[in-house]
Amino acid sequence: MALRHFLTTQDYSRAEIDTLLEQAAAFKRSPRGQQLAGKSVALLFFNPSMRTRTSFELGAFQLGGHAIVLSPGKDAWPIEFEAGTVMEGEAEEHIAEVARVLSRYVDLIAVRAFPKFQDWSVDREDRVIKAFARYATVPVINMETITHPCQELAHALALKEHLGDLQNRKYVLTWTYHPKPLNTAVANSALLIATKLGMDVTLLCPTPDYVLDERYMEAGRQNAARNGGSLKVSHDIEEAYRGAHVVYAKSWGALPYFGRWEQEKPVRDAHRHFIVDEAKMALTDHGLFSHCLPLRRNVKATDAVMDAPYCIAIDEAENRLHVQKAVMASLLAQPA
Amino acid sequence: MALRHFLTTQDYSRAEIDTLLEQAAAFKRSPRGQQLAGKSVALLFFNPSMRTRTSFELGAFQLGGHAIVLSPGKDAWPIEFEAGTVMEGEAEEHIAEVARVLSRYVDLIAVRAFPKFQDWSVDREDRVIKAFARYATVPVINMETITHPCQELAHALALKEHLGDLQNRKYVLTWTYHPKPLNTAVANSALLIATKLGMDVTLLCPTPDYVLDERYMEAGRQNAARNGGSLKVSHDIEEAYRGAHVVYAKSWGALPYFGRWEQEKPVRDAHRHFIVDEAKMALTDHGLFSHCLPLRRNVKATDAVMDAPYCIAIDEAENRLHVQKAVMASLLAQPA
Amino acid sequence: MALRHFLTTQDYSRAEIDTLLEQAAAFKRSPRGQQLAGKSVALLFFNPSMRTRTSFELGAFQLGGHAIVLSPGKDAWPIEFEAGTVMEGEAEEHIAEVARVLSRYVDLIAVRAFPKFQDWSVDREDRVIKAFARYATVPVINMETITHPCQELAHALALKEHLGDLQNRKYVLTWTYHPKPLNTAVANSALLIATKLGMDVTLLCPTPDYVLDERYMEAGRQNAARNGGSLKVSHDIEEAYRGAHVVYAKSWGALPYFGRWEQEKPVRDAHRHFIVDEAKMALTDHGLFSHCLPLRRNVKATDAVMDAPYCIAIDEAENRLHVQKAVMASLLAQPA
Repeated sequence: MALRHFLTTQDYSRAEIDTLLEQAAAFKRSPRGQQLAGKSVALLFFNPSMRTRTSFELGAFQLGGHAIVLSPGKDAWPIEFEAGTVMEGEAEEHIAEVARVLSRYVDLIAVRAFPKFQDWSVDREDRVIKAFARYATVPVINMETITHPCQELAHALALKEHLGDLQNRKYVLTWTYHPKPLNTAVANSALLIATKLGMDVTLLCPTPDYVLDERYMEAGRQNAARNGGSLKVSHDIEEAYRGAHVVYAKSWGALPYFGRWEQEKPVRDAHRHFIVDEAKMALTDHGLFSHCLPLRRNVKATDAVMDAPYCIAIDEAENRLHVQKAVMASLLAQPA
Repeated sequence: MALRHFLTTQDYSRAEIDTLLEQAAAFKRSPRGQQLAGKSVALLFFNPSMRTRTSFELGAFQLGGHAIVLSPGKDAWPIEFEAGTVMEGEAEEHIAEVARVLSRYVDLIAVRAFPKFQDWSVDREDRVIKAFARYATVPVINMETITHPCQELAHALALKEHLGDLQNRKYVLTWTYHPKPLNTAVANSALLIATKLGMDVTLLCPTPDYVLDERYMEAGRQNAARNGGSLKVSHDIEEAYRGAHVVYAKSWGALPYFGRWEQEKPVRDAHRHFIVDEAKMALTDHGLFSHCLPLRRNVKATDAVMDAPYCIAIDEAENRLHVQKAVMASLLAQPA
Repeated sequence: MALRHFLTTQDYSRAEIDTLLEQAAAFKRSPRGQQLAGKSVALLFFNPSMRTRTSFELGAFQLGGHAIVLSPGKDAWPIEFEAGTVMEGEAEEHIAEVARVLSRYVDLIAVRAFPKFQDWSVDREDRVIKAFARYATVPVINMETITHPCQELAHALALKEHLGDLQNRKYVLTWTYHPKPLNTAVANSALLIATKLGMDVTLLCPTPDYVLDERYMEAGRQNAARNGGSLKVSHDIEEAYRGAHVVYAKSWGALPYFGRWEQEKPVRDAHRHFIVDEAKMALTDHGLFSHCLPLRRNVKATDAVMDAPYCIAIDEAENRLHVQKAVMASLLAQPA
């Protein structure tokens, strides 16, 4: 039987996702357990983290295990990911050795590896985590690469807590301004999970250039078809917000400008008005607001929105702890 | 009932301080416990640390808990502390979210945040830790900002261990040379705790410019009045050391030169003779010497002083571990 | 009775080494224990690490203890190691205080401190770890300085697992190319442990300039004499590999060029053909290949060698975890 990883929620059926969410809810009611007693997880951060690192490290502890935090290239050796390379550059070791050795030490390997932001055709291959999954002999967990499946589960759990049944709820994923062109991972993930849960999803963005990679658009359409929801794109703020039950905000860089970000800047700067504010939220049907965090206040969303009772971003962040315990426990429970 | 933090010893009565010291002494005799079983503390370091980090991390472990070490701006996202800001600068998230999210994850938040050393009127507001205390829903611990209350307790415990009753002991807080203008935190703290414990305190410094912020001078005078001790300032090395029972050394930058440190440099450089040496210690009444560490040998104190039997700096450092366990256990024991 | 450290295997008799290896093998069969219950180890990294840090941190956890990871000069204060210095440079504290304070906090201190690569006559004194051992009042463990004794044990255990009796097996320590002049620590260590285990050792290197420090050559000869093995130097690749049972590869800088590395570069560059490849391995007597890692693939050894069944580098890396548990447990078991 093939080793199961947690690289994307697309590898998990709707029923499996529901089971993970139920396990997470149980962990939220009763945070401690022995599912990782004596076990360990390596957390490899190629990029910074606050919530992810804290929630994974704490989740391992709460289940009796131990997390080891490594930052390759900073406090560990830089790593080569391509096969067959003559390693005369910066990298001091190859992913084959890193993944194999870590697999001898720990029971789970979790990886955060953002895109390089130079060439989307390269970044979309997600080579770092795929290389870990290829060489590791223990389960690998995605802590955000070009999708962010742990965030998806935390988001889904928060929505279920506040809305109950999510079927055909109007869900708006809105692009927002941010001074830098950010990763599309959370946006891709929002599309995947919202459609998987059968919601009616609107992707709201300034121009067609901000539509997400067709891979995720197509997966979203298939998820919607399979789960009785829908997916459409809108560039009309008022239309998108009107009657929404959920507004999920995220900023990201427009893919056609990938690696030529100075050319995207004027387009980006022209759409500061995508900020989530009270006027927009007033158009919704008592809609909830959330964001994956970190969030720049008064840039992506106003103070009033962030501090409103309908903002569930803190609940979503809290849920990271519990969904990740569910993921770790589930991966460790698979037959060896 | 309001949530209790540990931001300054001034928020704690003399009786409460004594209780913490007794609990710390008990932990020193018997280091392990279950007071933090399954609990966690986030340690946020905006500045480097050796003793503080080790003693907090170890203290959590010895009581059955787990410490998570975070360095915002290095391995976590940079943070905005002002309310209402349009966050278009470096900071990727606001303290409101950081403190609220961490409060969902951990049971205690400990913060080290040194002054910025540019404008004392800003730094003396202690905004970073106050912002944490404002937004957090779990207790916040000061790991050194513009005071260093954990060091105060460790220092007090070491003095009690070596001297027993501290009432009206002659206590000298002496400025010493250091090539850089350091934080006044430990000096402020020494004034606060020495006066609180009823000692007769002399603040010895090169010139009136090196007197500490009037806030701490006034608090020291009030503490002294309340506890039967005294507080005076001296610029006379021999007078200050003569008959002293305790010499506590620290270097700090002169407040009138704050942010204009190149102008302070000649004054500072003219007072290298404030170094604690055997000749000065010989003037004391079998006085103890201590320092919070780190200490530059042969700059702040000579090798002979550091290696003398009357040097209790290592005992004081050891006590950090036990007083902090007492603080953590006490904060967690408050009614929810 | 003097406090026992683990600074070099030369301080341990053959029988003591065998006992450590047996304990390590037992830990490999049954990874968890309570030998460090409630105990702690400080891991001080003056240089980066992946395997060492992970295996020590995990080893402490598996035995019920806790490891604290410190990087002086990065997340802790820079340290002075010389006695008697007037500390007006970068260092904020002296090893005397660091070692004494850590000894009050933790039960074991482990140190990684590579040479500075400027003056071998200085680096060969190994001052950093010797200063820790001098001032610490708890056992000190070498995590790689100018030798790497933990790697020696892991290597020895892997050889025993694959070959059984090692007496008079032909062991080749081969220099390999690497773009930088690396530390001789693992090479020194390979000489020490291979001769201690009674093997017939050939040091294969490009020119006499690459022979190791006479201190280790002489120790190797004495070990060989005492344990019935031998030690010789060869510059003939074919002669060295022919009939070998073990090929251990490592790159290092030639000592006569120490600190003048630009002058060594052409010599180094002329010996890229020392790479371990299948043709060379075919000369051996079904020889095993190993390396301490990190390894640059297709520079030090080819992909084919690294991925061959005779490559035991991953086993050796795995053994780090278990030999280090044996070392920690053994050091803690000594009478106080």
